[in-house]
Amino acid sequence: MSQIYDRVALIGLGLIASSMFWAIKRAGLAGEVTGFARSSETRDTARRIGLCDRVCDTAQDAVEGADLVVLCVPVGAMGSVAQDIASVLKPGATVTDVGSVKRHVIQAVGPHIPESVHFVPAHPLAGTEHSGPESGFAELFDNRWCLIVPPEGSDQEAVARLRSLWEGLGSFVDEMDADHHDLVLAVTSHAPHLIAYTMVGVADDLRRVTDSEVIKYSAAGFRDFTRIAASDPTMWRDVFLTNKDATLEILGRFTEELFALQRAIRTGDGEQLFDYFTRTREIRRGIIDAGQDTDAPDFGRGTKV
Amino acid sequence: MSQIYDRVALIGLGLIASSMFWAIKRAGLAGEVTGFARSSETRDTARRIGLCDRVCDTAQDAVEGADLVVLCVPVGAMGSVAQDIASVLKPGATVTDVGSVKRHVIQAVGPHIPESVHFVPAHPLAGTEHSGPESGFAELFDNRWCLIVPPEGSDQEAVARLRSLWEGLGSFVDEMDADHHDLVLAVTSHAPHLIAYTMVGVADDLRRVTDSEVIKYSAAGFRDFTRIAASDPTMWRDVFLTNKDATLEILGRFTEELFALQRAIRTGDGEQLFDYFTRTREIRRGIIDAGQDTDAPDFGRGTKV
Repeated sequence: MSQIYDRVALIGLGLIASSMFWAIKRAGLAGEVTGFARSSETRDTARRIGLCDRVCDTAQDAVEGADLVVLCVPVGAMGSVAQDIASVLKPGATVTDVGSVKRHVIQAVGPHIPESVHFVPAHPLAGTEHSGPESGFAELFDNRWCLIVPPEGSDQEAVARLRSLWEGLGSFVDEMDADHHDLVLAVTSHAPHLIAYTMVGVADDLRRVTDSEVIKYSAAGFRDFTRIAASDPTMWRDVFLTNKDATLEILGRFTEELFALQRAIRTGDGEQLFDYFTRTREIRRGIIDAGQDTDAPDFGRGTKV
Repeated sequence: MSQIYDRVALIGLGLIASSMFWAIKRAGLAGEVTGFARSSETRDTARRIGLCDRVCDTAQDAVEGADLVVLCVPVGAMGSVAQDIASVLKPGATVTDVGSVKRHVIQAVGPHIPESVHFVPAHPLAGTEHSGPESGFAELFDNRWCLIVPPEGSDQEAVARLRSLWEGLGSFVDEMDADHHDLVLAVTSHAPHLIAYTMVGVADDLRRVTDSEVIKYSAAGFRDFTRIAASDPTMWRDVFLTNKDATLEILGRFTEELFALQRAIRTGDGEQLFDYFTRTREIRRGIIDAGQDTDAPDFGRGTKV
């Protein structure tokens, strides 16, 4: 893979930015990668582990001269970061982001971007429950999707170049518009996360079942929920606050269906339950066929002690 | 590991029974293992793959002369199977089961067990989303918990022997009473399964998001739900119908909490969301410390293509 940008600036040095750095290095996609994080502790860690070719003490320093600026901060912080760096953006450069919500980012970041600079939002659908500069790894984006959400009238060359970067990072790339993105993600990510957070919270609240029981016996289904519910609290707070409408709509539908199934349990309607569970089983098959998961029988059980 | 029973009969040859067979063989825990499945197709498959030392065409044939009879059928079928085999049970033998609900199994099976036979219900907390005779593997129970639920007045020697078997199969073993078991499992397994089924059903229903989008972009959280929601429909129908009260209680609490979080989203209460998500994150740490999951950063992503 050949170099796509001369200089890339990563603003925010958490799981996504650090994984981007290692994946950029793996494929030689950029000449130099600069980085900035608001917390001096994070910057120190980054310097210690060799994360970024150059860690800067201000966002402006990191951005200066960059051909690509990637905003890797929580969605709620995107607007103020964009405002902060706007004056030093190089004409002809591209600003992108990795936020999980797109309509809000476009509204918050867009107005700060100078006419001479391209703004091409994106969202890599990849992550783990870990966060921080030490959590990244080069393979995070391999065979995962990255959704590029170019606002109307975007420069096609800038979009194509960003697409090449994400392909170089290992991803498949699709384009869609912001509202559709936010609805799709409400279904596949935002609502499931809130539900997992809720279920884990309920278990924790329940006095008659001890914490140690919840933990010891988690392998029975609950474990997968706890992994989802261990994701970064700041990031997820911002996701829910900025993709409010779509998330609430999906949660409303979810509650409606849940009530129908609860009613089937209460009335003993085994046929309705069986039919429902048969249908959902088929969806799983589609995901495995699409290469987005494995059906290895020990999946998720980890290495043996 | 030395032999614990001369002859073990497995009634029902799905994921759990087939895994028990391979694990029994791995450790040499029984002299002979017989098996029976209601469907002749399953019996043929079992014979073809060498599952069980002897596959019988009736449950009674399989049970005759067995020191341990393990009921591995869906919870709703336990009672009629017990009735069917009651007359041929060997005096001094133990009947156990692997059902996910215990109060109902005790009520359905208990009355059929002769005075001369021990009845010691159990529940291994292990499984995958796969089912059928070919889905089993010897490692399924390694480092997983098996809960033994002896009714009052159980023979202590019979309980201890069954405990040795499960330890020989690779499990940790705990004892608890049936009602507590059913509540703990409602929290750690039954409610999470219904919630996952519901969320997957909602995604499938939603016309504005295509099936292929749901499948392609599932890595963003939804994937874990689909895996849970791919579990055996018959087994889960029976679980919900027979652990109705505890499951509905937990679902009621879940809905209450979900409404509180939805309200926080609607009113923009970021602090409440952040605090909630911080608390749930800590529970995850406890599960990893307890050895019931791994925090490897590529957990669940499968092998690279």
